[in-house]
Amino acid sequence: MTLPPYLQHARARDAADPLAAFRDAFVIDDPDTIYMDGNSLGRLPKRTIARLNEAVQNEWGKRLVRGWGEGWMDAPARIGGKIAGLVGAQGDEVLVADSTSVNFYKLVHAALDLRPARRQIVTETVNFPTDAYILQGIAQARNKKITYIDTSDGITIPTDAIVDAIAADDCALVTLTHTAFKSGAVHDMRAITDAAHNAGALVLWDLSHSVGSIPIHLNDCNADLAVGCTYKYLNGGPGAPAFLYVRRDLQAQLRNPIQGWFGQRDQFAMGFDYAPAPGMTRFNVGTPPMLSMLAVETGVDLVLEAGIERLREKSVAQTEFLITLWEEYLAPFGVTLNSPSDPNQRGSHISLGHPDALRIDRALIEEMNVIPDFRYPDNIRFGVAPLYTRFVDVYYAMERMHRVLSERLHEKYSIERPTVT
Amino acid sequence: MTLPPYLQHARARDAADPLAAFRDAFVIDDPDTIYMDGNSLGRLPKRTIARLNEAVQNEWGKRLVRGWGEGWMDAPARIGGKIAGLVGAQGDEVLVADSTSVNFYKLVHAALDLRPARRQIVTETVNFPTDAYILQGIAQARNKKITYIDTSDGITIPTDAIVDAIAADDCALVTLTHTAFKSGAVHDMRAITDAAHNAGALVLWDLSHSVGSIPIHLNDCNADLAVGCTYKYLNGGPGAPAFLYVRRDLQAQLRNPIQGWFGQRDQFAMGFDYAPAPGMTRFNVGTPPMLSMLAVETGVDLVLEAGIERLREKSVAQTEFLITLWEEYLAPFGVTLNSPSDPNQRGSHISLGHPDALRIDRALIEEMNVIPDFRYPDNIRFGVAPLYTRFVDVYYAMERMHRVLSERLHEKYSIERPTVT
Repeated sequence: MTLPPYLQHARARDAADPLAAFRDAFVIDDPDTIYMDGNSLGRLPKRTIARLNEAVQNEWGKRLVRGWGEGWMDAPARIGGKIAGLVGAQGDEVLVADSTSVNFYKLVHAALDLRPARRQIVTETVNFPTDAYILQGIAQARNKKITYIDTSDGITIPTDAIVDAIAADDCALVTLTHTAFKSGAVHDMRAITDAAHNAGALVLWDLSHSVGSIPIHLNDCNADLAVGCTYKYLNGGPGAPAFLYVRRDLQAQLRNPIQGWFGQRDQFAMGFDYAPAPGMTRFNVGTPPMLSMLAVETGVDLVLEAGIERLREKSVAQTEFLITLWEEYLAPFGVTLNSPSDPNQRGSHISLGHPDALRIDRALIEEMNVIPDFRYPDNIRFGVAPLYTRFVDVYYAMERMHRVLSERLHEKYSIERPTVT
Repeated sequence: MTLPPYLQHARARDAADPLAAFRDAFVIDDPDTIYMDGNSLGRLPKRTIARLNEAVQNEWGKRLVRGWGEGWMDAPARIGGKIAGLVGAQGDEVLVADSTSVNFYKLVHAALDLRPARRQIVTETVNFPTDAYILQGIAQARNKKITYIDTSDGITIPTDAIVDAIAADDCALVTLTHTAFKSGAVHDMRAITDAAHNAGALVLWDLSHSVGSIPIHLNDCNADLAVGCTYKYLNGGPGAPAFLYVRRDLQAQLRNPIQGWFGQRDQFAMGFDYAPAPGMTRFNVGTPPMLSMLAVETGVDLVLEAGIERLREKSVAQTEFLITLWEEYLAPFGVTLNSPSDPNQRGSHISLGHPDALRIDRALIEEMNVIPDFRYPDNIRFGVAPLYTRFVDVYYAMERMHRVLSERLHEKYSIERPTVT
């Protein structure tokens, strides 16, 4: 039997992939399922099962409250220190705590406190909604003005226009999502950070769709603040706690607006007056959800072992392959590429557009065993998670989407809205 | 061999205990360990092991992102609905989310928004520190004034003085910890809620040290707002997500200051302008830590099965027994009872004071296999968790503390500070 040439190519690439063995580190129950949604929820590392069993049955079950003195209390800083190695930061500049949204809230307030006389917050129209919602709440409470840079389709990043918008005198904070959640387009961190600093503003990066798939250079770019998610490319588990980064020289100047006891200096002295802990610890709030927290660590360890440069190299090769297949199989059906075609300008997911995207998404899941995800109004996102995604997965995802379109399998699906994240 | 009379008594009480079988629902690895710290971290329910294995290996490992549509997305409201049954609330008035500290922060801001012209927040000097710290941060940011009612030793609750302090014209919010973390003294929820309402203020109860051990009647008392912890008497696991309660008629009036996407109406439409979801959902923020979240549910189920009235009855009998033993064995060594002697005025833990309390605490843990916890400056807390604490546990805790004191076993310990919560 002669294989289709692209499938032959995919198999050859998988056979030569230096990261191929990492796929065995994950639970893969149904090898026929083509999981292209690691950019939403990363797969389960096998070692996380063992780690959680240890945490539940031994640490909680047997050591009980003593667990806090035996590895729980320092988990936020310890795991943060590991993530630091993925974002170009020092080990004492990253902490794992709360959700991305809560961390974003803390750092926006803290940044505005440092520029009290300035009124403007610069962001973009393709930002992830939770960032926009939180900014809107803070702007209302503190009488600040949000300037939304129109990044229109989100595919071409208008860096010059962003730099121009930042130049305003009363700009207090610039905050952008490093890799756009819809298009996968990546901002120029250095140019925008420089522009913010030239304007006397601070910059806060949301790294949720970048971390673990693309090298990030927070220190090199002199970035001030960042937040990010651990349940996507870091494979930390559903809703796993997020991280936040504060450049070392800013840590002592910033105030956490949510002054909880885990951010208190000398916490167990139980003093009655708040005094912030030194360093990143002040950005803790309440007792961290330890089971979800510990699952992050094994996920991060795998990314560190694979190495972010090698992961990026494979990710680029796979998204390039996906685009080749899109052009061949899907473009003739009116499917558009809603991501940058230049690999230097995109992260690790590719969005494909079609007026019937929601129905095509349903058909892929229900009939084709392909799991992408969907973003309104007309985007199907295919995430490449180079720790476990194979080239043949990319091949089958495109080949099966071609089958949906050519056999009109999507037409029987309604446009009822799915509820996946 | 003749048993000491109090041990005989304890065994008889255990033999007659209608809740005794619930102890078998927990992992109890070393039956000689006397765990008296369920008020800090509750024990591991056996069924939680199975539930987490299912959540990790099947829901995350196999269903992957589809888990959100299959029981994850509605977990905060579903588990909140169960907790409602323990705090005298309607099923749609409680939500599980974030930490107690973050929830407290959200509701303090929301309450102050409803009373914008008023400046005063009334609380007490024996409040749990995280509540005080968060109030201090908010008061500073919003130019409010905190009035601390001096509840002095925290043993006798000066309800009249609290009611008087609340009567001030500009009181916006009264917030107290229902069961005091040090002394275990319980506030009169009805009298204080009435006083707050008479003054035109809102009331916010911290139920962390009450829920699961003492009946709470939020609706009956017409309480406005509450928060609470799930890792103590609800056995939800280390740092498990907390809950918040908002009386139904207030829900639509309140604004969550942390406007995250899980609180957004029609979340997955990914609209760009924030519009709060109906009901309690608006008090969500980011993606909830699902593994820690799901562990809460099995813990809550056990409390519901045992029944809060029966648990309270056993708790009172056990704290009474503990006080009897204190009087007999420990008072002669200068150990003081730092909890109310009237069972109607206390929750489910008893604090015992001694100038050498920290060293005695160390000796109990290191030499006696008794685990209480310690609160500065001189309190040893013994928590009774009636789901699994036996009368013989209470007996041995007191008998072994007597041995520490009579044999001066604590004198070799330094006063180095332990780091347990």
